[in-house]
Amino acid sequence: MPRKPTRSAIAIACAASLAASASAADRPRAREAGIVVGVLPTGPANAITDVAGVAVGHVTRIEGRSVRTGVTAILPHGGNLFQDKVPAGFAVANGFGKFMGSTQIAELGEIESPILLTNTLSVPEAAAAAIGWTLAQPGNGEVRSVNAVVGETNDGFLNDIRARRVTIADGKKAIAAAKGGPVAEGAVGAGTGTVAFGYKGGIGTSSRRLPEKLGGHMIGVLVQSNYGGALTIDGLPFDQLMGRHYLSPAEPPAGGDGSIIIVIATDAPLSDRNLTRLARRAFLAIGRTGSPITNGSGDYAVAFSTHPDVRRTPARRAAAANYAELPNEAMTPLFHAAVEATEEAVLNSMFKAEAMDGAGGRIEALPIDEVIRLRRAPRQP
Amino acid sequence: MPRKPTRSAIAIACAASLAASASAADRPRAREAGIVVGVLPTGPANAITDVAGVAVGHVTRIEGRSVRTGVTAILPHGGNLFQDKVPAGFAVANGFGKFMGSTQIAELGEIESPILLTNTLSVPEAAAAAIGWTLAQPGNGEVRSVNAVVGETNDGFLNDIRARRVTIADGKKAIAAAKGGPVAEGAVGAGTGTVAFGYKGGIGTSSRRLPEKLGGHMIGVLVQSNYGGALTIDGLPFDQLMGRHYLSPAEPPAGGDGSIIIVIATDAPLSDRNLTRLARRAFLAIGRTGSPITNGSGDYAVAFSTHPDVRRTPARRAAAANYAELPNEAMTPLFHAAVEATEEAVLNSMFKAEAMDGAGGRIEALPIDEVIRLRRAPRQP
Amino acid sequence: MPRKPTRSAIAIACAASLAASASAADRPRAREAGIVVGVLPTGPANAITDVAGVAVGHVTRIEGRSVRTGVTAILPHGGNLFQDKVPAGFAVANGFGKFMGSTQIAELGEIESPILLTNTLSVPEAAAAAIGWTLAQPGNGEVRSVNAVVGETNDGFLNDIRARRVTIADGKKAIAAAKGGPVAEGAVGAGTGTVAFGYKGGIGTSSRRLPEKLGGHMIGVLVQSNYGGALTIDGLPFDQLMGRHYLSPAEPPAGGDGSIIIVIATDAPLSDRNLTRLARRAFLAIGRTGSPITNGSGDYAVAFSTHPDVRRTPARRAAAANYAELPNEAMTPLFHAAVEATEEAVLNSMFKAEAMDGAGGRIEALPIDEVIRLRRAPRQP
Amino acid sequence: MPRKPTRSAIAIACAASLAASASAADRPRAREAGIVVGVLPTGPANAITDVAGVAVGHVTRIEGRSVRTGVTAILPHGGNLFQDKVPAGFAVANGFGKFMGSTQIAELGEIESPILLTNTLSVPEAAAAAIGWTLAQPGNGEVRSVNAVVGETNDGFLNDIRARRVTIADGKKAIAAAKGGPVAEGAVGAGTGTVAFGYKGGIGTSSRRLPEKLGGHMIGVLVQSNYGGALTIDGLPFDQLMGRHYLSPAEPPAGGDGSIIIVIATDAPLSDRNLTRLARRAFLAIGRTGSPITNGSGDYAVAFSTHPDVRRTPARRAAAANYAELPNEAMTPLFHAAVEATEEAVLNSMFKAEAMDGAGGRIEALPIDEVIRLRRAPRQP
Repeated sequence: MPRKPTRSAIAIACAASLAASASAADRPRAREAGIVVGVLPTGPANAITDVAGVAVGHVTRIEGRSVRTGVTAILPHGGNLFQDKVPAGFAVANGFGKFMGSTQIAELGEIESPILLTNTLSVPEAAAAAIGWTLAQPGNGEVRSVNAVVGETNDGFLNDIRARRVTIADGKKAIAAAKGGPVAEGAVGAGTGTVAFGYKGGIGTSSRRLPEKLGGHMIGVLVQSNYGGALTIDGLPFDQLMGRHYLSPAEPPAGGDGSIIIVIATDAPLSDRNLTRLARRAFLAIGRTGSPITNGSGDYAVAFSTHPDVRRTPARRAAAANYAELPNEAMTPLFHAAVEATEEAVLNSMFKAEAMDGAGGRIEALPIDEVIRLRRAPRQP
Repeated sequence: MPRKPTRSAIAIACAASLAASASAADRPRAREAGIVVGVLPTGPANAITDVAGVAVGHVTRIEGRSVRTGVTAILPHGGNLFQDKVPAGFAVANGFGKFMGSTQIAELGEIESPILLTNTLSVPEAAAAAIGWTLAQPGNGEVRSVNAVVGETNDGFLNDIRARRVTIADGKKAIAAAKGGPVAEGAVGAGTGTVAFGYKGGIGTSSRRLPEKLGGHMIGVLVQSNYGGALTIDGLPFDQLMGRHYLSPAEPPAGGDGSIIIVIATDAPLSDRNLTRLARRAFLAIGRTGSPITNGSGDYAVAFSTHPDVRRTPARRAAAANYAELPNEAMTPLFHAAVEATEEAVLNSMFKAEAMDGAGGRIEALPIDEVIRLRRAPRQP
Repeated sequence: MPRKPTRSAIAIACAASLAASASAADRPRAREAGIVVGVLPTGPANAITDVAGVAVGHVTRIEGRSVRTGVTAILPHGGNLFQDKVPAGFAVANGFGKFMGSTQIAELGEIESPILLTNTLSVPEAAAAAIGWTLAQPGNGEVRSVNAVVGETNDGFLNDIRARRVTIADGKKAIAAAKGGPVAEGAVGAGTGTVAFGYKGGIGTSSRRLPEKLGGHMIGVLVQSNYGGALTIDGLPFDQLMGRHYLSPAEPPAGGDGSIIIVIATDAPLSDRNLTRLARRAFLAIGRTGSPITNGSGDYAVAFSTHPDVRRTPARRAAAANYAELPNEAMTPLFHAAVEATEEAVLNSMFKAEAMDGAGGRIEALPIDEVIRLRRAPRQP
Repeated sequence: MPRKPTRSAIAIACAASLAASASAADRPRAREAGIVVGVLPTGPANAITDVAGVAVGHVTRIEGRSVRTGVTAILPHGGNLFQDKVPAGFAVANGFGKFMGSTQIAELGEIESPILLTNTLSVPEAAAAAIGWTLAQPGNGEVRSVNAVVGETNDGFLNDIRARRVTIADGKKAIAAAKGGPVAEGAVGAGTGTVAFGYKGGIGTSSRRLPEKLGGHMIGVLVQSNYGGALTIDGLPFDQLMGRHYLSPAEPPAGGDGSIIIVIATDAPLSDRNLTRLARRAFLAIGRTGSPITNGSGDYAVAFSTHPDVRRTPARRAAAANYAELPNEAMTPLFHAAVEATEEAVLNSMFKAEAMDGAGGRIEALPIDEVIRLRRAPRQP
């Protein structure tokens, strides 16, 4: 729930980044700009889709002056998600949001539908899409209950959110568009109209592979960034060095509120409890980017495992069955990987997002050149 | 999520209650049948609307052979709910359900919209109705975020739930229809197609007033009953005495699964924490009716206070403000009242619900005469 | 945290049950008195020890006029509990208590020590006993962290609790005394000085075996009863029929406050998540006995599985390992069994407890004859 | 629960910091070394005691080669804590710890005793001290229940923790020693034997004052640091730049496990719900220092308000009473302040801690000169 940025906050952003309105294709990902978060290597696409089988689809709605919104779909695997459920965990850092599906994930430890992201007021349409799609899947003719998992953030500055332009068809199109490989980032899908730290935010993704001796597992993260704080980039207190003050008492906080949805995929065979723990870790990355998880945030994380040894197949749901799981003791490297990938996914969401004009005015892109300039200066003289 | 009752379970129900298909108007509420739950007096209507200002509206959809569903709306007060939020608490006993709006209630301790109940697959439409209605309220022209609160249970035996016939208009009509005074019970609104303990369930309500020396507060409860177990009526182990076996190993459980949504209103000035505690107590009543809160249940409770001293007005949300609250030490009688009223609301939902034919077959009404007959026999010879 | 019963409450109890001060050996268990809770059969001892390997030990401290306290130890199995941990779940209904060890159970899903019960102010001594005993076990020479699990209720009416007479040695003796087979009930161990519904409470236990077609699993429960409400016995509203009023506005609640600790063992192979769900169900039984879970209660449940397929052995804690678990779908009968056994365990704790004089006066025993008399009368004329 | 550092990890630490074994008095606090975390000003002592009325006391036990432990007491105010309780919130990031008192804080939203910190196996002695001290306070003659709040971390490398040398008397001495003003940091009290990121950790504290226009409130934090990860100092990835690898696959993690206890005090008038939210924010700071909250951690935070308008006095606990609280909307600056102060408190705990020899060997101090050297280099060439 970002408030409208105040005029002076926008002015600051404008002054700092007039040069930044290049197209998304031209803007580098964080790593391409020389910013390497952490020590673990990424997967081949540095994306959530590096976890085999995970697919992502976007529907982007940019129309006229005031429609700046969309839907992003994440599919845990390419089969029948309802029949072959994936173990999952859920975590909330600040619940000022409308995340749908959380209580069933927590109770049963599983996800049975695509995960859809959209804007705050379009959760019903996204949910209806997930439900309708699931009912129509071959083999689901007897299904009478679907736990749609829908996250949202509020794009109400750039987007005329009250018009509620996202349709059920948009949601289904995003599901249908889902595929593996590289993932479009920045102002696409559910990130089309979002704002992060007063700059243009959006969709970002990243991945990490653990060394073979720590299990060789892959962790992938996708975020919808729309939150605020005192922007910190890989440890660099960017906002502080730039004199941007989201807490300035001279005027109400600008860009301080907002939300983030974090989706974590892994091929490590984890129990739902350990996936819940993994989901909780993602918020540490949000802290590392400079957010105190503000009052107005709806900050949620969901994590699932694609490993066949823990998949909730019809057979496993019918009788006692074997699950080959990692022990608690194996979790620390996975936690570490999730934090690294989440932090980089946030950075990617901002690095790739170009400036945008919309319903409430213009939001500038993150001035990457300023970031690099400041990284070249010593912290302490 | 009730499964289809097995044939023999239906047969048992039929044999026991052929005489019961009187109209709802003819069927007595539990108290009218001589069953007085607990020791505290009720309010004038013995309904959630005994809490001044609370209004309830139903939309009932009975069409052809297979549409048996609806929407029930509960409005905490008659003003602008978004501007004048009510403190609230939320509790989940078993999260196999799609309750929407829970995380924001838990985080902020408040409700800002009507509470809507409907069927499992129509949550999106109900949510869209609550959002649309709120956006359109006078004074809400700048609102960009609405936390719709929607509960559901699965009416998929009597209702062709996959057809998803509830519309956004239905949700808005239920809100518009909301009024104080007596509340229609049984197979109405969101209870039109529900099943409880293998009998016809539905909407039920009840209230309790504390003695003046314990504060004189009113507690009102409304339930959407759709769950199962070994039916127990005010302590009488009805199913056991009738030889009905929801756990019989000879056949899969019938009527064992399902869900209940419980809405609790009070005029006691309570903090959100104490409202959360109050919400948790309601499930004790579900246990008293013979349910172990089955695996397939989505059992949720939400509680709010209408007292002006704790209302979250714009002024109180803008700066430090006074809240005159009851202390922890005052809670026990309120807990007791909530349990009594919830148990009686469940009984009322079944006492008032007539038999119904629908998509999956016929569900008989609770055979009230058998209940009375068994209550007249001693438990121990 | 029971308050001192008021004088008139004690007077009522006295009038009702002068004849009841027989010795515990003479007093029947509920089932022996003809009160059969539910429909499932019990295990051979109708005790938590019917779950193979579970052992219980008591130390009872009755000295002079004012020492009425003790310790009860429950051992999940006879091996090295720290090395071979059991999966476990924890639940709290009302957290006005000092239960120790809960966060680690919730995080890791396991128990690694004996479970000790004692009085509110003696948790430190019991914890020190569990820690010391664990450190001294063969094979634990390198152990530097022990999650002692200690529950308590407040025996401060009969016992001079401020004197803190329970010693570390008492705790170790209770562990050493643990054995299988029948379990002493009533005013023994941690139940020596407790009060339930204004009558003498204490330790109670019961068990249930599922039919083979539902898995044939055993569920055993042990409780330390020290709580209150409107006493209901297998559906009979005893207090109401006797005119006892814990909520009477004429005087402050008597016997209304207090706590209960519930320990659930099963040989069903359950995940920690499903054990947590199982633990939550136990409180439904507390509701069935007439308690609204009062404000002053510390009501906790812990559940563990003894099945070797889910035991957290050193090998399973070191690397990915197989767990053969029951699915969510198998839980309903286990939930039902836990509710039945908990309700009967509470009744046993009161049926077996004789009247006792102590620091604060006399607490009468439950007048069993009155219970039987009232069960022989019809509920409705 | 730190494991023993492996030999090579110790070797790395030694090589890096041989020069660092100056005395604590000589070592600067982070801010004195030029490291200024965040943008908000500190209070006069830059300590938790900047919140008026809060007092801190240490007992440090350094004896022979193997006793390296102690107790730290934090008193929310100087009056009778049991009678005049403070509203409080509790949060757990990873529950592999033995924090005592948490469920009652969560249920009732208040603290009624001193908060004691000690080592993992000495929680019982600290709890017994808090209980005994409370029972003996003037005015507490009728108290029969005390919710001792005790946190711990595991000092089992430097300290022979299995010897359990902390006594009840130590706990009482720490309470008696509590005073306002500057707080000793580093290897004192409960931090005597702790290890953070493979270096000597201990007690650290810091504070922040909000600008008057944001309320002017004070936030103070005290930590007991004993955890690990990839040490990051005010954004500087110190471990990474130094080539220290807590996740190195070549050998098991060293210094990766461990715990942190965080105590937050504020004079802002907050509800228990908002104090709970405040407590949750502290872990963001732990993420900022480079920890992913490892599997072996027991990471807990407790927050309380000293403001008289929210204090739970006997009068306020007896009847409906006024609380003048800040609204949700005022929380973001307080969240921000808590994160800043927690991060700086952790740094202070390490900056002030000198190297120490103990039971398991030597733990070097953080090499401050290396930190400064690296801060003077640009992050990106």
